[in-house]
Amino acid sequence: MSLAQGRPYLAIPGPSTMPDRVLAAMHKPAPNIYEGEIEEIAARVAANLRRVAMSSSHVAIYIANGHGAWEASIANVFSRGDKVLSLVTGRFGNIWALNAAAMGVEVERLEFGLKSPADPARVEETLRADKGHEIKAVLLTHVDTATSVRNDVAGIRAAIDAAGHPALLMVDCIASLGCDEFRMDDWGVDVMVAASQKGLMVPPGLGFVWFSDKALEASRSSNMVTPYWNWHPRAFPEFVYQYFGGTSPTHHLFGLDESLKMILDEEGLPHIWNRHAALARAVWAAFETWGQGGDLALNIAEPEFRAHSVTAARIGGGGAERLRKWLETEAGVTLGIGLGMAEPGTPEADDFLRVAHMGHVNAHMTLGALATMEAGMQALNIPHGRGGIAAAAGEIAKGVAQA
Amino acid sequence: MSLAQGRPYLAIPGPSTMPDRVLAAMHKPAPNIYEGEIEEIAARVAANLRRVAMSSSHVAIYIANGHGAWEASIANVFSRGDKVLSLVTGRFGNIWALNAAAMGVEVERLEFGLKSPADPARVEETLRADKGHEIKAVLLTHVDTATSVRNDVAGIRAAIDAAGHPALLMVDCIASLGCDEFRMDDWGVDVMVAASQKGLMVPPGLGFVWFSDKALEASRSSNMVTPYWNWHPRAFPEFVYQYFGGTSPTHHLFGLDESLKMILDEEGLPHIWNRHAALARAVWAAFETWGQGGDLALNIAEPEFRAHSVTAARIGGGGAERLRKWLETEAGVTLGIGLGMAEPGTPEADDFLRVAHMGHVNAHMTLGALATMEAGMQALNIPHGRGGIAAAAGEIAKGVAQA
Amino acid sequence: MSLAQGRPYLAIPGPSTMPDRVLAAMHKPAPNIYEGEIEEIAARVAANLRRVAMSSSHVAIYIANGHGAWEASIANVFSRGDKVLSLVTGRFGNIWALNAAAMGVEVERLEFGLKSPADPARVEETLRADKGHEIKAVLLTHVDTATSVRNDVAGIRAAIDAAGHPALLMVDCIASLGCDEFRMDDWGVDVMVAASQKGLMVPPGLGFVWFSDKALEASRSSNMVTPYWNWHPRAFPEFVYQYFGGTSPTHHLFGLDESLKMILDEEGLPHIWNRHAALARAVWAAFETWGQGGDLALNIAEPEFRAHSVTAARIGGGGAERLRKWLETEAGVTLGIGLGMAEPGTPEADDFLRVAHMGHVNAHMTLGALATMEAGMQALNIPHGRGGIAAAAGEIAKGVAQA
Amino acid sequence: MSLAQGRPYLAIPGPSTMPDRVLAAMHKPAPNIYEGEIEEIAARVAANLRRVAMSSSHVAIYIANGHGAWEASIANVFSRGDKVLSLVTGRFGNIWALNAAAMGVEVERLEFGLKSPADPARVEETLRADKGHEIKAVLLTHVDTATSVRNDVAGIRAAIDAAGHPALLMVDCIASLGCDEFRMDDWGVDVMVAASQKGLMVPPGLGFVWFSDKALEASRSSNMVTPYWNWHPRAFPEFVYQYFGGTSPTHHLFGLDESLKMILDEEGLPHIWNRHAALARAVWAAFETWGQGGDLALNIAEPEFRAHSVTAARIGGGGAERLRKWLETEAGVTLGIGLGMAEPGTPEADDFLRVAHMGHVNAHMTLGALATMEAGMQALNIPHGRGGIAAAAGEIAKGVAQA
Repeated sequence: MSLAQGRPYLAIPGPSTMPDRVLAAMHKPAPNIYEGEIEEIAARVAANLRRVAMSSSHVAIYIANGHGAWEASIANVFSRGDKVLSLVTGRFGNIWALNAAAMGVEVERLEFGLKSPADPARVEETLRADKGHEIKAVLLTHVDTATSVRNDVAGIRAAIDAAGHPALLMVDCIASLGCDEFRMDDWGVDVMVAASQKGLMVPPGLGFVWFSDKALEASRSSNMVTPYWNWHPRAFPEFVYQYFGGTSPTHHLFGLDESLKMILDEEGLPHIWNRHAALARAVWAAFETWGQGGDLALNIAEPEFRAHSVTAARIGGGGAERLRKWLETEAGVTLGIGLGMAEPGTPEADDFLRVAHMGHVNAHMTLGALATMEAGMQALNIPHGRGGIAAAAGEIAKGVAQA
Repeated sequence: MSLAQGRPYLAIPGPSTMPDRVLAAMHKPAPNIYEGEIEEIAARVAANLRRVAMSSSHVAIYIANGHGAWEASIANVFSRGDKVLSLVTGRFGNIWALNAAAMGVEVERLEFGLKSPADPARVEETLRADKGHEIKAVLLTHVDTATSVRNDVAGIRAAIDAAGHPALLMVDCIASLGCDEFRMDDWGVDVMVAASQKGLMVPPGLGFVWFSDKALEASRSSNMVTPYWNWHPRAFPEFVYQYFGGTSPTHHLFGLDESLKMILDEEGLPHIWNRHAALARAVWAAFETWGQGGDLALNIAEPEFRAHSVTAARIGGGGAERLRKWLETEAGVTLGIGLGMAEPGTPEADDFLRVAHMGHVNAHMTLGALATMEAGMQALNIPHGRGGIAAAAGEIAKGVAQA
Repeated sequence: MSLAQGRPYLAIPGPSTMPDRVLAAMHKPAPNIYEGEIEEIAARVAANLRRVAMSSSHVAIYIANGHGAWEASIANVFSRGDKVLSLVTGRFGNIWALNAAAMGVEVERLEFGLKSPADPARVEETLRADKGHEIKAVLLTHVDTATSVRNDVAGIRAAIDAAGHPALLMVDCIASLGCDEFRMDDWGVDVMVAASQKGLMVPPGLGFVWFSDKALEASRSSNMVTPYWNWHPRAFPEFVYQYFGGTSPTHHLFGLDESLKMILDEEGLPHIWNRHAALARAVWAAFETWGQGGDLALNIAEPEFRAHSVTAARIGGGGAERLRKWLETEAGVTLGIGLGMAEPGTPEADDFLRVAHMGHVNAHMTLGALATMEAGMQALNIPHGRGGIAAAAGEIAKGVAQA
Repeated sequence: MSLAQGRPYLAIPGPSTMPDRVLAAMHKPAPNIYEGEIEEIAARVAANLRRVAMSSSHVAIYIANGHGAWEASIANVFSRGDKVLSLVTGRFGNIWALNAAAMGVEVERLEFGLKSPADPARVEETLRADKGHEIKAVLLTHVDTATSVRNDVAGIRAAIDAAGHPALLMVDCIASLGCDEFRMDDWGVDVMVAASQKGLMVPPGLGFVWFSDKALEASRSSNMVTPYWNWHPRAFPEFVYQYFGGTSPTHHLFGLDESLKMILDEEGLPHIWNRHAALARAVWAAFETWGQGGDLALNIAEPEFRAHSVTAARIGGGGAERLRKWLETEAGVTLGIGLGMAEPGTPEADDFLRVAHMGHVNAHMTLGALATMEAGMQALNIPHGRGGIAAAAGEIAKGVAQA
């Protein structure tokens, strides 16, 4: 008998759970797109997007998903034949690099496997070897949502600087912005890419590219950009439609305006970062406890390199996939599938899953997801260490006790 | 640091969590109230209300809350000076009796305390003593939402019959309908009262009174009814507005039409009863485990007399109220306050709380609420037995394994 | 070929068109009903209800429709056997009187037909004749939504005073509040009754009774009230649930809170009254022009006695009903049926319709309804004077030109 | 005094009025984007998009606005240096051509002014002159939303064929699809571009490109496409995310799925085409009548070349802009600004406006907009012929009388 009937909980790493206020803000007639409130909303959203990235520079808004934002970032910065250094720590870093290559950029890859962050030393070494400064930029994924590794953005910037190399630092924060701490200015990021549907808590449909003056300068001499991706009119619009390269994404703007208010003016970024950290620790504690009595393990061994927004894990013997399906049909929870951890179609592909804890998420949602996992493991006879939820609850108690 | 930011979970015993589909169904322009779709909806809702009560007889719909439905039931059945036997097992049974008295009915009370169901033997005995059959009806609360006791409706009917007494059986199912098994016809219930906001998963605003032919007959000679409460035009309408004694409750009807479809045509009543039973067992298992290491206890000792929709419990030393507040501000869960278990304002009043598990509720929501309670007890240093969630998860696993 | 596909316009005299903001405010999870935001909302709504009635005294909120509010007003003020003077100017005044009688009040009726307001002179005369002051109250309908007559409330008060009679003045403003000017204190009204679904722009489901200190005093000695209708705990609550005699009407409160904000703090009552007056004049101008070339007429001849919220009219030869049906199926407009103007089922019953212009209504909606009527009359070959819309448009232009 | 308070009517040529059902369908939690209902919805939407275009070939869905869809169409079909013949009949045809040029396509333009459709004879002549068949495609705007001219798509196809030229025919139906008759297969269109926010009645945020086998073939040898615009994976997906080049536009899909159901399975395309034609005739009749007494004129003189979805008009002496502003602030109607008809900033720029009648629009909405214009012209003393609304109403009556 299914016990799933009730409010379903979607714990996949994007789209995340939308706040009721965001969905309500989108349930409205369309506004005029040439004048009136749309002008205020567009300006406020653009300003707040800079705030959410801790950036004092520029932002372009695209009607697109994250793949579109990736393409926009490449199209503005590069000319065909330019060279980029891509740091690959998972499936999504890989695709960004492949897309750059498909667009005519020469890609040099540094691979760090599926369980480790990018190593600043290798980056520094590679850049030092690039005597002619042919590498125009370094591509880095802050959190790769497939592996749930979290890269040390400031550390990579330091490596670039240590090498005395002028490369731009381009960072994909799609799976981290609004969840994990990120400071565009302080960390010396030149181009940052994100999208609406994860930490920003809005349905999929908007991509964003932030860029520094240095990146702006670089874009002036690039030859690859097309009218839709061109960030100049979007970041420096004379008329409101230029923000969006044509018709405004009216309803997504209504939603994003509301979510940015919640993020910046109500909860506040530092609190959000701490909340995600505490919830992540609860998830880790459960898995670590379970792993003491079974073939379960977090994908990323070292806590400092684990994302705070999503957790990839392994449950051997196909347990991950069986558990995922049980949760969906019997308990009302949808976890994320494992992505890019094993060859699709092989038995190993069924050993991975992901638990998201990004955006509009609290102790109840997270502990509830973990507790249904424990029920599922009991139901499916998946061996696991006892006391996982008590351990997770303990982390929640500790998190709340923090100042 | 609060970890409540996210989708809040309201686990009070009514109003319950509304399904998104129900709220969406209510987000619509008003219809014509004299003709068109309102006629179909009203007829379908009335028919489905009979189905949800397992009743082949009559139903009147009131724009009112449960207190209004109580008043309607009294107003139709009695004349001033008539006598009723009231079986009191908690605060709500008590108020129904008080209201009847305030309306001019002579009330004889049988009190069963706050931790026990009504005893059929005492009912039989009392009715046998009523040689002149002055008692016109017996008032029974199926589930008293304050004590979470669940009375044996069929057993009380049997007691009435055993006494050879013609009294009508009037039952308040406000806190049980759509959660606990209830069979109006099979169990010989003459009048049943319910409301929209609990098992029926619709916002507060509608009350219902079902009545048998025998109750209908009784109502013909009563002198107390007023135009608004009169169940005749509502149950046997010629025009659509008569269902509602005037203007239709248009938006509540949209919502109720949708929820009754979900209940009757999608999940089905037997599945719903079983789901509530399984979730209730999970809650009980957690409390029983916790109680082994601390001053915690379920209010109702015997499982067969515990409601499947709500659980009242005691956590000594004011722990209940401290825990409730912690959950609300830190974890995103709102539990129900204790009601009617101790004198308001006394320290003992802070020893009670209620966990609701009624209506649109699943394993995730329920286990999540329990797991946040465990976190809260850790945070607040409330002594409790370990392993509560593992035990609850085990009950969920067992529940799913049921055919 | 139907040209109705599009946003339908419901121009019946209640429920009226709900603002999107009101529906959005109601599309929310339920709140806790014992503490928290519900306490603020209930207090604010009660305060704003007094403001909307221009009243400094008391208000009770009922989960009920207008019929329930009528019943509440009677139940609180009277004892069985008390006498009331009922001024009947249409179907709804008639039902209020019938209900009072059914509840045990002795009703003396003054009838003023279906096309005229209550005559203060006859009221004064009747009261003067009541030397023993047996008449406890006078019942008056401000706007009878069936006839669309608007009574002179202040004039009736003056008549009562001129007669030196102590009778309470009880006024039904269901179809006028939030549309036509109404001043409870200034006009000496003791009891006023209204509901949520007309000028207050919220779905049906709430009724309200305002009462003066004098009415409060009268209620202390009455013997008819039942717990549900008792206005004392509702108007002077110690706990939040007492406002509502039990479970709060959570979602209606969300909606009403929003609509009262729009009415009182955004548009403002004087502007609302003027807007309704201007829209009403546009409707009248169209009908008057049409009537110059056909068998059409407004029900109320004298403009000063016409409601500003609804207009009843006659189109001979069954034209009203044919036009109403054409508008609904072909043009996307639903007008109100004629009510109480002729014996149902007779050919004459098809000669009446009503156009509502109450609540959330603007020039576009009103002129659009009139213009589709003109299209319908052309389509159905209903003779009518030319230039109706031009005349209506002229009134709109004049209305806008007003300070 | 403003008479705008009420439900606002947005009569700009996109975004159009969204049906309540569409907005409600979008007010939902996000679904899983890797499996489950999203797979069914994506497949159904793609199939229905082909139906709405009367196309048996292929469709790619883009998270983008119309400008993005333009770019996608260019990127797939051309290689840098290819030549295209652009037929310009307004601002939007002009931008499409400019964008193609900016992307590296050599553009030959045929200009037809702002008041006339493209002339098939000139197209045939131009193509005949292109002996070497260097022109790879002809770009045509079905309805240019700035001028409201409607081009004869089949006629242009015939001209291409008459010239014996192999050029692809690429048509922009952004402002016509779901309003004006369009038959992709029958009319020999190779590439068609549209977007969500006009006739398809969904918020802005999706663009679409349909393409024939011949266009598919052409795309195989083009060198310009980037990963995001590539139509191959989108039109022939193996996994659901390939439809959308990454994360699905979940909420727009919910909305579009609903609107396509309304269009195809409920009202039906032929009825929709006829409805738009009838409403357009009503608008034209009003303007023609008004023009008889003032300096007003429709932009397109010949009815057969007027769009059925939007009407551009001129009101001299800045009357257009004054009227537009009056309607917005005083009457609750927002008309479209004139676009591309005169130099922005000059007095002449204030002489143009546009009335949209696209998508979810009925007799009430359209006649209401016209009637408020008549009120506004009276208020602003803009001379105009009398009887405009009566004439418009007459067209509505005739439209309804059609089989």
